[in-house]
Amino acid sequence: MGLIVQKYGGTSVGSVERIKSVARRVVAAKEAGNDLVVVVSAMAGETNRLVALAEQIAESPDERERDVLLASGEQVSSALLALAIKSLGFKARSFLAHQVRIETDRAYGKARIKSIDSRRVKQSLKEGEIVVVAGFQGVDQDDNITTLGRGGSDTSAVALAAALNARCEIYTDVEGVFTGDPNICPAARKLDRITYEEMIEMASMGAKVLQIRSVELGMKFKVPIHVRSSFSEAEGTWVIEEDKTMDEVLVSGVTYDKDEAKITLLAVPDRPGLAAQIFGPIAAANIVVDMIIQNASAAGTTDLTFTVPKADYKKAVAVVEGMADTIQAKGITVDPKIAKVSIIGVGMRTHAGIAARMFQALSAEGVNIEMISTSEIKVSVVIDEKNTERAVRALHKEFIERQAAL
Amino acid sequence: MGLIVQKYGGTSVGSVERIKSVARRVVAAKEAGNDLVVVVSAMAGETNRLVALAEQIAESPDERERDVLLASGEQVSSALLALAIKSLGFKARSFLAHQVRIETDRAYGKARIKSIDSRRVKQSLKEGEIVVVAGFQGVDQDDNITTLGRGGSDTSAVALAAALNARCEIYTDVEGVFTGDPNICPAARKLDRITYEEMIEMASMGAKVLQIRSVELGMKFKVPIHVRSSFSEAEGTWVIEEDKTMDEVLVSGVTYDKDEAKITLLAVPDRPGLAAQIFGPIAAANIVVDMIIQNASAAGTTDLTFTVPKADYKKAVAVVEGMADTIQAKGITVDPKIAKVSIIGVGMRTHAGIAARMFQALSAEGVNIEMISTSEIKVSVVIDEKNTERAVRALHKEFIERQAAL
Repeated sequence: MGLIVQKYGGTSVGSVERIKSVARRVVAAKEAGNDLVVVVSAMAGETNRLVALAEQIAESPDERERDVLLASGEQVSSALLALAIKSLGFKARSFLAHQVRIETDRAYGKARIKSIDSRRVKQSLKEGEIVVVAGFQGVDQDDNITTLGRGGSDTSAVALAAALNARCEIYTDVEGVFTGDPNICPAARKLDRITYEEMIEMASMGAKVLQIRSVELGMKFKVPIHVRSSFSEAEGTWVIEEDKTMDEVLVSGVTYDKDEAKITLLAVPDRPGLAAQIFGPIAAANIVVDMIIQNASAAGTTDLTFTVPKADYKKAVAVVEGMADTIQAKGITVDPKIAKVSIIGVGMRTHAGIAARMFQALSAEGVNIEMISTSEIKVSVVIDEKNTERAVRALHKEFIERQAAL
Repeated sequence: MGLIVQKYGGTSVGSVERIKSVARRVVAAKEAGNDLVVVVSAMAGETNRLVALAEQIAESPDERERDVLLASGEQVSSALLALAIKSLGFKARSFLAHQVRIETDRAYGKARIKSIDSRRVKQSLKEGEIVVVAGFQGVDQDDNITTLGRGGSDTSAVALAAALNARCEIYTDVEGVFTGDPNICPAARKLDRITYEEMIEMASMGAKVLQIRSVELGMKFKVPIHVRSSFSEAEGTWVIEEDKTMDEVLVSGVTYDKDEAKITLLAVPDRPGLAAQIFGPIAAANIVVDMIIQNASAAGTTDLTFTVPKADYKKAVAVVEGMADTIQAKGITVDPKIAKVSIIGVGMRTHAGIAARMFQALSAEGVNIEMISTSEIKVSVVIDEKNTERAVRALHKEFIERQAAL
C-alpha cells in the first residue's frame, strides 16, 4: 500500500505484447491498493534507430536537436502504455518532461535533473489516475528538450520517487544485482540488499543494471530502490541505506572491467606539479582518468602509470606525446589488454586485512598484480586481461562462497 | 526578400535523402535574403505506423494518448531537418508546439488553433536562425498535446504565417491546383491563381492539396498561400484574395466526389419541423449531411433526398429506420453509386446562366441529373457514378477549354 514509482526499461516495453504485459502488472499493483507512477524507456531498438537516422544526416549531430529526436522514443512508449492501461479499464494519463515538469541543466545528452514540479502528477494521482511518465527526458529553464544519458530513465524514476516521497521499483531484464557475473561464477547469487555506496562502487557491474546517477540521487534523498525482473514475480535486490547488520558482510560483490587501458610514463624527472602538468591537458581533452599510481625512485625519477577508457587511449597517448618536452619521460608504454578486478563491501570499513587476503588469493592462483587502488569500501587491482576469469572466480570463492558457507 | 513560412509534407521529408534535399532548398531561400520558418509533417508512412501501433493496443484508442503518440512523428522530422540545415553550415533551431507555443482547443485529433505566441520564433529569427516547427501539433491551455487532423501541418503553416505576417509556401508532391483531374481531363491545366472561396468550394479536389481549415485561416488573415511542388522549381498556384480581374474567369475548376451516398425518404407526410426531426438525430450520430433536397407534392407528401459520406450511409439508414413511426415515409431508397460533379468560380457571381449552360452540356452528353445544389460560386449536381468521367470531361471542355480558347 502506498505510492510506488515503477520504471520499465526498453526490453520490458519492447513490443506491443510486452507493453500489454507491463500494463497488466501495473494494474495489479493498483488493484492491490497502491498509487502508481510508471516511468518508461523507449521501446528496445528505438533509440538506436533514431541515432542512426541522425548520423545519416550529420556526422556529429547537433546535440540540442539530437535530444529533441531521441526524446520522441519515450513519448511513443509512454503514450502506448497509457493506452494499454486504459484499455484494461483503468484511468491513466501520460506526461512528458515539460508537462510534469522535470527541469534539468542544459548539458544536452547527459543532463542532470535540477528540480521536479510534482503538482500535476499529484493532481492526477488524486483523480485516481495511473500516471505514466516518459523517462530519459527533461527540459531546461528555457523549455529546450534535454536527455539524461544512457540509463537516464532510472534517474527519472528515482528523482520522481524522491519528489513524491515514494518507493521506487526498477524493472529490468535481470533478476537483481549479483555477487558476481553468473557467466563466470556459477555460484554467484542475487543479493537481497546492497547499500547505495556499494552499488556506486560496483559501477562496472552496477551500471548495467542502474544508471549510477540514479543511485547517487537515491542515496541523497534516501529513496529505497528495488531492482527486479519484469519477467517474473520474484523479489529482486533492494538498494538501500546501510544498517547495522550490513557490515557483517565483508564483501558484497566481485566485479571486473575490461574497458580500460594502462599508460605508463617511464623515468619521469620527479618534481612538484608534475601530475597537474600531465593530467590537466588529458582532462581538457575530455578523457576520464580512473586509477593513477606514482612510484618515486631513489634516482629522482618516477614511473607514472594511469588508466583511461580503452576507447580513448590513443587520444591520451597523443596528448602525452604532445607534451614530451615538458615531461621528459624516458619512454611511454601502453597496455590495452588489462582488466580491473574489484571486491566491494561496506564491511571492509570495520574489518582489517581484507586487501591482504585478496592479494593472497590472487597470488595462490598465480595472478600477477600490476596496479592497486583502494577506497573505504573497495579494493581494485589491475591484472593481465587474460587472467580476468580466474581472478574473479578465485575472489568470489574466497569472499562470497566461503562467507555463505560459514 | 522578407519572411517566408514554408511547409513540407510527408512525401517531401519521406527519407533522409529527401530531408537533405529540403534543407538545401531552405538554405537557398535563406541565402537569397529571406528569413525562414519551416513547418514539417511526419515522414511519409510514420503516422500510419504509429496509428497501427495504437490500434494493436486498443480497438478505439483513447484520443488524448493517441495525440501524444502521433505528435512524435513531427518531433522526429523537425529535429532531423534542423540537423540537416545545421550540417550545411547554417544556424537552425527546432520548435515543438509547446515551445512556440501553439495553443488549441481540446478537441483531440481535430483541434483548432486558438492562438500562437510568436515571441520565441521571432527571437530565434532575430538571432539569424532558420526556425523549424513541428506541424500538425498544438497544446491546449493545460499543456495537453493535441493534433490538428489530417493535413493539419498546412494549418500550422498558415497560422504561423498569419501570426508572423509572412508569406506562406506549401510544398507538396503536385505542382499546384488544377482546373480538373488530369487523369480524366488531359487538357487540365495548373491554375496560376485561385481565390480562398474557390479553394474552399473545391473541397473534394482541394482537400487533397490543402487542409480546408488552412484555407479558411488564410482567408481570415489574408495570408497569400503558394501551393507548389517540392520536386521542381516551377511556380505553383497562389491562393489569394479576389481581385478585379479574377471574376473575368467564369469557372476555375471542375471537381468530382465519389465518396457520397444518396438516401431518399419516399412520400413523407409534409409538415412543419419534419427536417429538424430527421436531421437532428443524424447529426447526433456524428454523420455529416451534404446536400438536402425536398420536393413538396400536391398530395401533401414530400420526397426528401439527402447525401451522406459513403462510409456512413448504413448508419444513417439505421437512424432513419429507427424513426419510422415518426416520419411515416412510404419507403426508403438508398443509392451509394452516385457522384457529385461541381463547377466552381467566383465569376459566377456576376454572370447569369452558368447553371443552365452546365445542365445543357450534361444533357448533350446524355447524363441524367438526380440532384442539384448551388451556392454563390458553385453549382453541384449528383449523377450516376458511372457517368462521372464523361460529365467531368464535358464540363471541363465547356467551361475551361473553350474559355482558354477565346
